[in-house]
Amino acid sequence: MVDADNNNPVHQVVIVGGGFGGLYAAKALKKADVNVTLIDKRNFHLFQPLLYQVATGALSPADISSPLRSVLSKSKNTKVRLGFVNDIDTVAQNVMVGDETIHYDTLIVATGAKHSYFGKDNWEEFAPGLKTVEDAIEMRRRIFMAFEAAEKETDPEKRRAWLTFVIVGGGPTGVELAGAIAELANQTLKEDFRNIDTSEARILLLEGMERILPPFAPELSQAAETSLTQLGVLVQTKTMVTNIENGVVTIKQGDSVRELASKTILWAAGVKANPMGKVLAERTGAECDRLGRVIVEPDLSIQGHSHIFVVGDLANFSHQNGKPLPGVAPVAKQEGEYVAKLIQQRLKGDTLPQFNYTDHGNLAIIGQNSAVVDLGFIKLKGFFAWLFWLLIHIYFLIEFDNKIVVMIQWAWNYFTRNRGARLITGQESLAQVGIEDSKSSYNRQPINV
Amino acid sequence: MVDADNNNPVHQVVIVGGGFGGLYAAKALKKADVNVTLIDKRNFHLFQPLLYQVATGALSPADISSPLRSVLSKSKNTKVRLGFVNDIDTVAQNVMVGDETIHYDTLIVATGAKHSYFGKDNWEEFAPGLKTVEDAIEMRRRIFMAFEAAEKETDPEKRRAWLTFVIVGGGPTGVELAGAIAELANQTLKEDFRNIDTSEARILLLEGMERILPPFAPELSQAAETSLTQLGVLVQTKTMVTNIENGVVTIKQGDSVRELASKTILWAAGVKANPMGKVLAERTGAECDRLGRVIVEPDLSIQGHSHIFVVGDLANFSHQNGKPLPGVAPVAKQEGEYVAKLIQQRLKGDTLPQFNYTDHGNLAIIGQNSAVVDLGFIKLKGFFAWLFWLLIHIYFLIEFDNKIVVMIQWAWNYFTRNRGARLITGQESLAQVGIEDSKSSYNRQPINV
Repeated sequence: MVDADNNNPVHQVVIVGGGFGGLYAAKALKKADVNVTLIDKRNFHLFQPLLYQVATGALSPADISSPLRSVLSKSKNTKVRLGFVNDIDTVAQNVMVGDETIHYDTLIVATGAKHSYFGKDNWEEFAPGLKTVEDAIEMRRRIFMAFEAAEKETDPEKRRAWLTFVIVGGGPTGVELAGAIAELANQTLKEDFRNIDTSEARILLLEGMERILPPFAPELSQAAETSLTQLGVLVQTKTMVTNIENGVVTIKQGDSVRELASKTILWAAGVKANPMGKVLAERTGAECDRLGRVIVEPDLSIQGHSHIFVVGDLANFSHQNGKPLPGVAPVAKQEGEYVAKLIQQRLKGDTLPQFNYTDHGNLAIIGQNSAVVDLGFIKLKGFFAWLFWLLIHIYFLIEFDNKIVVMIQWAWNYFTRNRGARLITGQESLAQVGIEDSKSSYNRQPINV
Repeated sequence: MVDADNNNPVHQVVIVGGGFGGLYAAKALKKADVNVTLIDKRNFHLFQPLLYQVATGALSPADISSPLRSVLSKSKNTKVRLGFVNDIDTVAQNVMVGDETIHYDTLIVATGAKHSYFGKDNWEEFAPGLKTVEDAIEMRRRIFMAFEAAEKETDPEKRRAWLTFVIVGGGPTGVELAGAIAELANQTLKEDFRNIDTSEARILLLEGMERILPPFAPELSQAAETSLTQLGVLVQTKTMVTNIENGVVTIKQGDSVRELASKTILWAAGVKANPMGKVLAERTGAECDRLGRVIVEPDLSIQGHSHIFVVGDLANFSHQNGKPLPGVAPVAKQEGEYVAKLIQQRLKGDTLPQFNYTDHGNLAIIGQNSAVVDLGFIKLKGFFAWLFWLLIHIYFLIEFDNKIVVMIQWAWNYFTRNRGARLITGQESLAQVGIEDSKSSYNRQPINV
């Protein structure tokens, strides 16, 4: 299959990671005269921008996930390999998947980022972040369990802590989570409880900077803050989180330090690169930035390793305006497509000018009928921004998996103000109602692949 | 709230379990002059008849689940309480939820059944059953992981074991699982792999009796077997399972005993009553049958405890034709509604004739365009039976939660032969690709309610 001694060996492209960067690279190589192996530790691509909708009970994980094999089934030159890459041998040009080696002529590393606690990893237990399907299910469990616990709590102070939701980080994910929880409390759950008034829930959105949504134009940040406030969210800017413990977050505003009692603290503040960045740096001598992202050349390759590319959130590309490109889906997608094109040019003995990101703008949704859109040349807020957000997301979702169902689910949720996916699931959810032998009592059998 | 010394205390009805029996009892008490407390360990009602569709990647858990609070939000006399009932005090008339006691004047116990291994509980690890959302996710993981493992396996014998699926039990669930896995292998996944031909998968359906679907008319059992065979399922009747180990199932056919190598063994054979049956028996002196079901009076109460009722799969009601009613949703629903009506009659000083189950018949789906329907006076098979199955399930799903989306998902799956929910998720799914520190590394924080 892979044999460098062949007379006309087919060029082997290995892509590590099936997120936006890796998947769009693979798709763009569909008709290229190469063999592609896409390796991912999951069997599905996750549409991460909508993960907050899973965390807040509006969509199911499968609604925003597409089986990688299914997306790439028509790419006959492409193999999908479920597995975890634990090392790279840049001399023999192999990646190691378990005890198997897979040879590459060109390597594209697109393993992305995960949330980061700025060195305070012990905060994670008390303030989970949102990067994977499992994270979203866990966040969903905590949010809905908090209302359940408040319903049965008789001590007013404790009840208040159950009904206090703190979201750390005022970027798009934080804004989206805060808006969605406010809608849950004020609309979806309003008639469901008998002992509590869910609309008394306090939802705090904490941001260290001067304004939320820092990448947006200031007037849009202001519009978002106004919309959130109307939904009942308490937006606290210039607010630093100095400590997180079980049920208590310590905040610093100017010189004032205080503690907030909250049973549901959600982390939407920082990200860092996947550990693969460190592996790559060790194996290639590449430099990483302080977030662990690999600093790449103008063509997204690693210095001195022109056949190893890094795309998406794992890459630090600073050749456009001196600042690294942001870790968003459109950047990853364009980078993946660029590298796919460059590989094909090189096979023809040609090359490409340096990568150039076309920024189509920023969007963030706040709630129903409310979003902010910053396209540079035009700025939208309110209903039209919301409609625009909706159309863009439907377009991208449908592009590779025809997720018509999501559209209909959204329409349904919109008109009924309902969120049908508010399940509390997982073994923890049984343990916490006092079922010792929680599972149907068998040990999950590991399957090694 | 609950005070027996009041002048006009409102009659307190406590329902344990939010399955078909408990939920329909609660719904039928909506306008009654009683207070209702429905206690469940989950925050949602699960439409169990469709659980096999989650296990085979066609639907998401939320598609077949309805938040109990949402279903009952309009029943202003009804409280939902998330919790686990660990004991009942029949003298003081209290149920114990954790360390809290809830008083009842009338108690309805509807905690259902779980799968049973006929005393061979160690089989469960190797042959999981299908009763909860977590079971379905686990089954889904095993099914799709088996194809992934086969794709990378080079040893033909091991590959064959990965591509062998054994379903133990030829009742409706076994038939439905076998049919769905056959469609996966022959249609949905056909284009997705490069090293294996998924249609070479062997799917065996094992049944101990003379024919599959024993409750149906013999000609329908025959029709089901023919349809399954056409889908590529190997139906083996008069086949006893004598042992299950990791990857090996031992079967006995007549005097011949042989071992089947299969990495995916699924259990659809037996059920037994929830442990609450035993608690009830101890507290009331009621008798249980060999499956642990509580033997009930003609009005579904427990002998000597006219204010304690048992409905659904937990009850053994044999006053109609001498045989216990089957553990199916329509029985549970009618029993729940009967008890709700009886409570209201009693409050008026009246009573009701004994419970009488109206059997509308049996249905089982085999695959697309194929089902069997036995209504007694009419027997359907093939496309019309399938259409009938579809309409009935849509009717019941929509009845309490307007799950229009399921209808559309089905239509979509039907025309595309796709199954979008084939995700491999959960901590095990990461551990098994060799990620030691699998989770985003925090300990899930228990929340006690």
